[in-house]
Amino acid sequence: MSNQKLFNVAVVGATGAVGEQIIRLLNERNFPINELKLLSSERSAGSVIKFKDREITVQAAKPESFEGVDIALFSAGGDVSKLLIPEAIQRGTVCIDNTSAYRMDPETPLVVPEVNIDKINEHKGVIANPNCSTIQMVAALKPLYDRYGIKSVIVSTYQAVSGAGAKAINEMLRQSKEILAGNEANPQILPVSSLPVKHQIAFNAIPQIDKFVDNGFTYEEMKMINETKKIMGDESIEVTATCVRIPVVYGHSESVYVELKSDFEMEEVRQLIADAPGIVLQDNTAEQVYPLATEAAGKLDTFVGRLRRDLNNPRALNMWIVSDNLLKGAAWNAVQIAEYIAIEAN
Amino acid sequence: MSNQKLFNVAVVGATGAVGEQIIRLLNERNFPINELKLLSSERSAGSVIKFKDREITVQAAKPESFEGVDIALFSAGGDVSKLLIPEAIQRGTVCIDNTSAYRMDPETPLVVPEVNIDKINEHKGVIANPNCSTIQMVAALKPLYDRYGIKSVIVSTYQAVSGAGAKAINEMLRQSKEILAGNEANPQILPVSSLPVKHQIAFNAIPQIDKFVDNGFTYEEMKMINETKKIMGDESIEVTATCVRIPVVYGHSESVYVELKSDFEMEEVRQLIADAPGIVLQDNTAEQVYPLATEAAGKLDTFVGRLRRDLNNPRALNMWIVSDNLLKGAAWNAVQIAEYIAIEAN
Repeated sequence: MSNQKLFNVAVVGATGAVGEQIIRLLNERNFPINELKLLSSERSAGSVIKFKDREITVQAAKPESFEGVDIALFSAGGDVSKLLIPEAIQRGTVCIDNTSAYRMDPETPLVVPEVNIDKINEHKGVIANPNCSTIQMVAALKPLYDRYGIKSVIVSTYQAVSGAGAKAINEMLRQSKEILAGNEANPQILPVSSLPVKHQIAFNAIPQIDKFVDNGFTYEEMKMINETKKIMGDESIEVTATCVRIPVVYGHSESVYVELKSDFEMEEVRQLIADAPGIVLQDNTAEQVYPLATEAAGKLDTFVGRLRRDLNNPRALNMWIVSDNLLKGAAWNAVQIAEYIAIEAN
Repeated sequence: MSNQKLFNVAVVGATGAVGEQIIRLLNERNFPINELKLLSSERSAGSVIKFKDREITVQAAKPESFEGVDIALFSAGGDVSKLLIPEAIQRGTVCIDNTSAYRMDPETPLVVPEVNIDKINEHKGVIANPNCSTIQMVAALKPLYDRYGIKSVIVSTYQAVSGAGAKAINEMLRQSKEILAGNEANPQILPVSSLPVKHQIAFNAIPQIDKFVDNGFTYEEMKMINETKKIMGDESIEVTATCVRIPVVYGHSESVYVELKSDFEMEEVRQLIADAPGIVLQDNTAEQVYPLATEAAGKLDTFVGRLRRDLNNPRALNMWIVSDNLLKGAAWNAVQIAEYIAIEAN
């Protein structure tokens, strides 16, 4: 360990909901850091963040910020990634991007370590972190894919407001208080901050996450469809998604119907999921044990339960998948990738 | 109208969440009532409820309560229905039962007026009102069934706490206040009041409604599966359901994937749904229009949106179905049945 290489690391979007978790995980995991640069927009620059025994002042992200940086973790929105990742790559930085900017770029690996860590070495300067709702689903499906193959997936999501950022959390909590006090919800952020129509999220379910595509699906739904194929490395997997925002702070839940390519025994399915890396089986109906968003919040794993054979299709089964969308769905998956890069370099 | 027959009507479970809505609807719809009897448990008896210009004292329900009663609407739990419906039938009362007691009885019609009102005359004293989550789904699927046939349905629900009664509403609102104030949720009712394990419902999603069956599904899920076949009168329809409680007060939402038996055009599907009785099409993605529980609350109709052709299966489409679970899902469907009985008798 004394000869362990130390890295100059930058976190772009350091003051955001995901950036905050990345910094916490780099600390808790004792990531081998020489210098840590915390970067943000001009507006958020100047704040001071404690990291181990250091106090680090957040700086406005600029192309020159990446001089001497080995690894940069981006979660400051797609526009920032598109602007600054080429600059960082030019300066020799390996970028891990949490936005959708590079995910479907054929040159960019889209990585969930439990599924396709082997792709990490194919990068040309940037490795993309998938969408939160996709990560937990593919992590849970991977052991079934390897053993049986997957023909199709039909997923309906129950997504937490933290997926839309700190402002959406505040909005949901504020609306809840207002309504409990007998006042109006007065929605201002959700479902999509850049679109004109706003809907109440407190005590409601909004079947829109991100903008709509011409085919009637949302971008969020198309991300689940397209990213699943890319991460699994199998364009033949048929995915149908309906993405819904519900009044939960942390933790996305997913109701998943999956049709396998071959026959299966439920006992083997249970064992495969229990043994899979990063997955915790929580499935005991007699004791009312199943994954819950409130219990997954703050944890790094993906939780799977409500496992049951479909009553109609002998090759299908149903499951309930829950994970903390800011951790495995974003910050932890990114830090996992950074850890693999660090190990490879040693 | 002067010769219109007037009915002696009883509401059993008059002080419950559904009973309250039944009384309100009988009033608003000017149901042809001679005498209205409000019945409840011993515990709730004695309270006085205003109905038009009368003040009616709630009485404890007993076998003799049904002497001279023409129509009784039951929503006081399955045990009360099993005990008192045979007594009421013996006294010549036609019973409309909101509980699951008689739903799967082969002798009992299970009726959603928009789907199978023709079954109403086959009753032997009792007509069953289906489960809330089933009613809104079959009402929305009926026009597609008639035109194309339905091979299979995969549904994930987002169900309101009012479906578990007034105590569950209070629990969810109390927990919300506690958590917003930084205190513990201290769950006591949900997911199932008679089971030992309780889970937080505020800011959470609980994948359990009712008890579990040996096959890993819940009774609520099995109700959706079995009742859909019975109401549609087609045992070949394959239904898979995942039923989830979310922190919404009124209004169940459903994400539904449906595979039809023949090819279809989306424009025709849209038109069929827009023209269907009791259904309102709310589907304009450009304007962010889709059904929302908060907007469906208090309304009698079932709202359908997010209509889109499946990207993988050319005979499948996806939709989002929302309705007030206490109204179309319970009280309104029951009063609709009572209105048909009244019309037939005239």
